[in-house]
Amino acid sequence: MGSISNTEVHNHHNDDDDDDHRHRVNFSIQRGFGTKLKEALKETLFPDDPFRQFKNEEKPMGRVMKGVQYFIPIFEWLPTYNFRLFCSDLIAGLTISSLAIPQGISYAKLADLPPLIGLYSSFVPPLIYAVFGSSRHMAVGTIAAASLLIAQTIQTVVDPVEDPTLYLHLIFTTTFITGVFQACLGFFRLGILVDFFSHSTINGFMGGTAVILILQQLKGVFGMKHFSTKTNLVAVVKSIVNNRQEIRWEPTILGVIFVAFLQFTRHLRNKNPKLFWVPAIAPMVTVVVAAVFTYVVKGQHHGIQIVGHLDKGLNPLSIHYLNFNGKYLRAVVQAGLVTGVLSLAEGIAIGRSFAVADNTPHDGNKEMIAFGLMNLFGSFTSCYLTSGPFSKTAVNYNAGCKTAMANVVQAIVMALTLQFLAPLFGFTPLVALSAIIISAMLGLIHYEEVIHLYKVDKFDFVICMAAFLGVIFISMDVGLMLSVGLGVLRALLYVARPAPCKLGKLPEIGLYRDTEQYNVSTYPGVLVVQLGSPVYFANSIYVKERIMRYIRSEESSTGDVVEHIILDLSGVTAIDTTAIKGLDELIKILGKNGVKVLFVNPRLEVMEKLIISKFVEKIGKESFYLILDDAVMASQYTLRSSKAANNAQEVV
Amino acid sequence: MGSISNTEVHNHHNDDDDDDHRHRVNFSIQRGFGTKLKEALKETLFPDDPFRQFKNEEKPMGRVMKGVQYFIPIFEWLPTYNFRLFCSDLIAGLTISSLAIPQGISYAKLADLPPLIGLYSSFVPPLIYAVFGSSRHMAVGTIAAASLLIAQTIQTVVDPVEDPTLYLHLIFTTTFITGVFQACLGFFRLGILVDFFSHSTINGFMGGTAVILILQQLKGVFGMKHFSTKTNLVAVVKSIVNNRQEIRWEPTILGVIFVAFLQFTRHLRNKNPKLFWVPAIAPMVTVVVAAVFTYVVKGQHHGIQIVGHLDKGLNPLSIHYLNFNGKYLRAVVQAGLVTGVLSLAEGIAIGRSFAVADNTPHDGNKEMIAFGLMNLFGSFTSCYLTSGPFSKTAVNYNAGCKTAMANVVQAIVMALTLQFLAPLFGFTPLVALSAIIISAMLGLIHYEEVIHLYKVDKFDFVICMAAFLGVIFISMDVGLMLSVGLGVLRALLYVARPAPCKLGKLPEIGLYRDTEQYNVSTYPGVLVVQLGSPVYFANSIYVKERIMRYIRSEESSTGDVVEHIILDLSGVTAIDTTAIKGLDELIKILGKNGVKVLFVNPRLEVMEKLIISKFVEKIGKESFYLILDDAVMASQYTLRSSKAANNAQEVV
Repeated sequence: MGSISNTEVHNHHNDDDDDDHRHRVNFSIQRGFGTKLKEALKETLFPDDPFRQFKNEEKPMGRVMKGVQYFIPIFEWLPTYNFRLFCSDLIAGLTISSLAIPQGISYAKLADLPPLIGLYSSFVPPLIYAVFGSSRHMAVGTIAAASLLIAQTIQTVVDPVEDPTLYLHLIFTTTFITGVFQACLGFFRLGILVDFFSHSTINGFMGGTAVILILQQLKGVFGMKHFSTKTNLVAVVKSIVNNRQEIRWEPTILGVIFVAFLQFTRHLRNKNPKLFWVPAIAPMVTVVVAAVFTYVVKGQHHGIQIVGHLDKGLNPLSIHYLNFNGKYLRAVVQAGLVTGVLSLAEGIAIGRSFAVADNTPHDGNKEMIAFGLMNLFGSFTSCYLTSGPFSKTAVNYNAGCKTAMANVVQAIVMALTLQFLAPLFGFTPLVALSAIIISAMLGLIHYEEVIHLYKVDKFDFVICMAAFLGVIFISMDVGLMLSVGLGVLRALLYVARPAPCKLGKLPEIGLYRDTEQYNVSTYPGVLVVQLGSPVYFANSIYVKERIMRYIRSEESSTGDVVEHIILDLSGVTAIDTTAIKGLDELIKILGKNGVKVLFVNPRLEVMEKLIISKFVEKIGKESFYLILDDAVMASQYTLRSSKAANNAQEVV
Repeated sequence: MGSISNTEVHNHHNDDDDDDHRHRVNFSIQRGFGTKLKEALKETLFPDDPFRQFKNEEKPMGRVMKGVQYFIPIFEWLPTYNFRLFCSDLIAGLTISSLAIPQGISYAKLADLPPLIGLYSSFVPPLIYAVFGSSRHMAVGTIAAASLLIAQTIQTVVDPVEDPTLYLHLIFTTTFITGVFQACLGFFRLGILVDFFSHSTINGFMGGTAVILILQQLKGVFGMKHFSTKTNLVAVVKSIVNNRQEIRWEPTILGVIFVAFLQFTRHLRNKNPKLFWVPAIAPMVTVVVAAVFTYVVKGQHHGIQIVGHLDKGLNPLSIHYLNFNGKYLRAVVQAGLVTGVLSLAEGIAIGRSFAVADNTPHDGNKEMIAFGLMNLFGSFTSCYLTSGPFSKTAVNYNAGCKTAMANVVQAIVMALTLQFLAPLFGFTPLVALSAIIISAMLGLIHYEEVIHLYKVDKFDFVICMAAFLGVIFISMDVGLMLSVGLGVLRALLYVARPAPCKLGKLPEIGLYRDTEQYNVSTYPGVLVVQLGSPVYFANSIYVKERIMRYIRSEESSTGDVVEHIILDLSGVTAIDTTAIKGLDELIKILGKNGVKVLFVNPRLEVMEKLIISKFVEKIGKESFYLILDDAVMASQYTLRSSKAANNAQEVV
């Protein structure tokens, strides 16, 4: 393939008489099954060609080095790490730590876990991620939606109040399952699964989760003792109304003040992006202020509940607590898989968006392995599900982190906190934690995005609202499945109804475009249809019926009998045996009505199947054209000559 | 749109300097939401434009008439029915009746039902079909696979030996559910569901079912009393080995003779198609000969079991037996839905293939309504599930049937049989019925089709084998679901990996083709990629990664830095918001590396979304081209001018 100059490009329509033999369709290419399978697997599982870094390396030692660097990214950036980078990472690490402590405690409460588990979860997993993670901006920590979802699922088999130990062990087991599952997804390169969580699904799910999480926090803000264990809107509102005599004004006022403060700091940041650190440290400030205030005014006597006693010390081992009892296994596996996919979807989407913004590397499958390993090791060391939470990662990015070292800083700060300061955080009032969650959740409701979806794509809007309403009114997993199901349904509809269109010729150019879209010319008696992709069992009947309809409408609108139908296959990327049979039937039916079918520009894969199934042999190579205009001209030619013959007969 | 002569087609490459403004992309078309929704619904549910017959009728009375004719096809053909047609239908009707009696009894035994139910089922449903059915060749009757499947599912809740009455009532209820379901599918035009049963699935399922049905018949052939109630291969072989002392030589010899006879008649027909009536009446001959023989030699004393007493009389009403008890409802609904879809898939595929062969009308959705109504009324009159069995319909076609009147003849013959001859058929030996089923099933194993699938399409082969092996080794419904699931998975893979390809210019023509397929020329620094369809959330990441890979491989193979990437959207039929966001990210990343992205020929739907999402506004209308070659030339031009500028600088 060399370069050609555009002056070589000639007019190609001067030779109508022999254009049948002018531009030949390539019938000769036949790849072996091995080649095709290899290509299909590569496109399906390795579209980003991940091993390119060391595949092309000449020296064997260099190849091993690059291989290690590929699989363990820390070896890639640590050798060139320097003090300047560390200063940036230190600031970012300290900032996310100040967020990690209150968030860790709050989200652990969401999952009905002891607050310490939340703190433990910000120690080990960030260390693991720092070694294996490929993103430079990810800040590891627990996430609100998954915390609630995991609790909901495990609570169907164990009550966290009645048997807190068993409940805790099952949460560890769930985390273990999540870890194994995520690592496997990454190892087997099944990132494709996560692709099925669309932007619209995640948006709706996040919004719905934010609403139910805010509703849950009303318990803390109102200082109530009894509250619905269900999360749906109806149950929560009912529960508040029924127990309204429990509402205390003291925590309510505190809560409103804290939420207002936190929202105000965010407003400041929006006004001036340089103040990113204000909302980042605001939760810590809230916790400290609230704890001191409560301690001073003896808040416990005024209905202000506090977290309670917290032990000193680092993560204890928990590997011996993993519980694979068949009685609970179903719930554990279900929770593990659903939260596993969910936290991947969130974590990968976030990592990707910052990587794009900064043009830094990001590898979905490597991220899955890193997430999997951090949950696996987490489950051995008293941590529960962690991922890359949106808020924390955004703070990390804005604080100027350069590498995963920020996570190491976070881990060290958490270790120091656990070793020396943990008991102090026991004085944190619950209402402060609730205010932190509410404020975080308010930031996740992107109604302007939903309006955008409504304007651009109604089906995307429906997918989004299915997740939102499903989460609010039914449950989190139902909402999620519903939305993903609609997305898959839409994909299937694309395949079942592949949008063919009728083509006409652009004036003065030998090119064809959609008749609906452009002012193009058509030839009487010749119908040109572009088929959508793929032609497949799920649409082979549709394609047939649609073509029959084109013929009918063409004949009724122009009054000319259609004698040739030309199918442009340029856009058809795949075909299967049912569809080939369908084309065969179409040719038969049309043949009986005196209509000839021509095919233009079948692609490689399609041509291979048409040849091997003897379809080409059956209908003849002369029915295939490389250039649409050639096919149209040839049809016109036979049309005219048959008319001429008819006329000649009439004259005789 | 008028006709143009091809001499008007000029060379369009003489004007490189102003081609930017020469062929404009149409940015103006914006359809309203209502229009788009209407078109989408029409394409999805009414692709065949079913109401065209009476929509365009001028006179209101004519419109009503055509409407009635559309919904009740008998009004279409009966007014022009004549004696000559009746003669053909009479012969065909008598032929299928002779098949209906032994098949009715045999298949009822497959479903563990009293043999009379099988005969009843060939009386009422054919009458209903004659009124509502659109196919001219369909012969209505019970089908083997569904008979076995329905029995398997209902037996999970009721034992047919312990409580035969309840079992029978549940079968009627299942038939009722099937009828309602099928009629609804047809009414709501959900024929699209049946489209998801591919040719490969049906092939594999039929073959697998044939094998397990033959295995089941070994009970009758060996004259055994104990036999596995399970249908899978392992259970049946075990059961035969364990009870081998029960095997009697007398029925075995008879069975082998009968099967050989039936297969021989089929062989005759294959040699000489005019002898179609020989295999058609062979089952009836077998039954009569076997009954007489058994009566004469007192076969009961030699281990040859017979059907037993049969009552005279037409179908009793069964509407009051329908049982919607919650305890059984789940199994009943499951059996109803699965067998409903299955029998539709078989019946519609068969009707369609004969309609194609004969160029007669066939309407999938109307067929569903007809099938639904015949099962609905069947469930009120002691019938169980009926459809259009392949063997019977083929016989009907070969016997020269002209209209659905053949079914009326069948119904009349069955009525006479039930009224007068039923008791005689009580003497039929079971081994004769087994031989009839075995012979029918041997005709359903199309190994040559499977070889064809293997050659043409390995994935289709896997789909087929999943159904076959699933049915043989697990169960019928698991096999079916597995196979349909693989088909859907493949459809999703098509969407997730839409097969983009790199394009190059055909020598001497301004058209672009796949570089792998044709010997085309590329331009250094300009990469042309054709995207597959649709661009969608499930593939937006893939598309990005694939394009990055194209750029890398282009740069490493040619050594030229890619400065322009041109995306040909001609084949992209749909796009969603996630994909638009993805393209946006792609442009950002590439922009940072100094690569410019151009788009060529977006289709109507795609353009609408690109405009409404402000994508066009953001990247500028000048990035869109109508003609691929124009985009390439424009890129070449800027490339050359920037190089010239560089050179100029160097010179200075």
